[in-house]
Amino acid sequence: MATNITFHPGAVTPAERAELLGQKGATVWFTGLSASGKSTIATALEQALLHRRLHSFRLDGDNIRFGLNKDLGFDPKSREENIRRIGEVSLLFASSSSIALTAFISPYVADRELARALHAKHDPPLPFIEVFVDAPLSVVESRDPKGLYKKARAGEIKEFTGISAPYEAPPKPEIHIKTDEVDVTGAVEIVIKYLEAQGIIKAQQ
Amino acid sequence: MATNITFHPGAVTPAERAELLGQKGATVWFTGLSASGKSTIATALEQALLHRRLHSFRLDGDNIRFGLNKDLGFDPKSREENIRRIGEVSLLFASSSSIALTAFISPYVADRELARALHAKHDPPLPFIEVFVDAPLSVVESRDPKGLYKKARAGEIKEFTGISAPYEAPPKPEIHIKTDEVDVTGAVEIVIKYLEAQGIIKAQQ
Repeated sequence: MATNITFHPGAVTPAERAELLGQKGATVWFTGLSASGKSTIATALEQALLHRRLHSFRLDGDNIRFGLNKDLGFDPKSREENIRRIGEVSLLFASSSSIALTAFISPYVADRELARALHAKHDPPLPFIEVFVDAPLSVVESRDPKGLYKKARAGEIKEFTGISAPYEAPPKPEIHIKTDEVDVTGAVEIVIKYLEAQGIIKAQQ
Repeated sequence: MATNITFHPGAVTPAERAELLGQKGATVWFTGLSASGKSTIATALEQALLHRRLHSFRLDGDNIRFGLNKDLGFDPKSREENIRRIGEVSLLFASSSSIALTAFISPYVADRELARALHAKHDPPLPFIEVFVDAPLSVVESRDPKGLYKKARAGEIKEFTGISAPYEAPPKPEIHIKTDEVDVTGAVEIVIKYLEAQGIIKAQQ
């Protein structure tokens, strides 16, 4: 029954954790218009990473807005706090040596830069990979899977990103995915190759 | 350069995730007086799990109070919100197939039951393992590593758990660790064996 457990004092270091788990932690932060494909790409990326036996977790509206952030509304201050908390939670996942994937419109440069700064200030700093999922408004509006753009055009939804509220495109994202040039598989490959090139995950044999 | 990525539609199921990563998710929620040994045991448990190449992450005052919950004070409402958020974040880790370890005094039954309920209501339900780190007040007060009990006795800290604020012991914790009967290694072995018995992690060969 002996489990032969021996401990060294103090917490496991980030380097030791990365070595033991075979991956470094990082946050891949998707940003883009509603219906641009953020969630679809993040979901496919999560699948691809898990099939390599790598730990990854996707934060999205479903698991955040109905859980951690269910106390928040949609006024400007609440939206800012929403993104702040997502930044902090993604940082926790990244510091656990997981690859956090966030799939939120996150339309403002300032909010995204705040999340980036949290990762940069962490000891040790953790990679923050901003992925701009760039789909033209005409395309996402024609998709409109939930009828949100239609409602926004009709004035039934106020301050809808791209229609009645601004989307501030990232000036210098780590990855720029133009959805009229690559499909989901192509987008996932781009991110995977980036993670490999950065030494966050190992290249497959 | 082909990465041969193929996807199935939708997200990876929890069962598929557990299979791919070789572990189920769970939250191990330590509760007990200040200086009872919660953090020490959680730190050692995290080490033991990581050395088995299992994903685990410890939430504690350092990574929560200075990050996600830095907007919260210490009034009753803030304390409740502090524990609520910790419950939600541990749920996210558990649903990622990680083993979340929380090491907070969390003195109130109601707050801990709220965290437990979040796990029970999740689809699928996730294990919530309450570990009562039971050290007599006389012992923790004699340890007093940060001099907090002394300050509390002197009235310099108000509402200090065990001195001037109640600690509500868990009536039915999954695991009851009496620190005058087991050392840190013994405590870790108890939790590990529990996780194995529940099929959350595999028994070692």
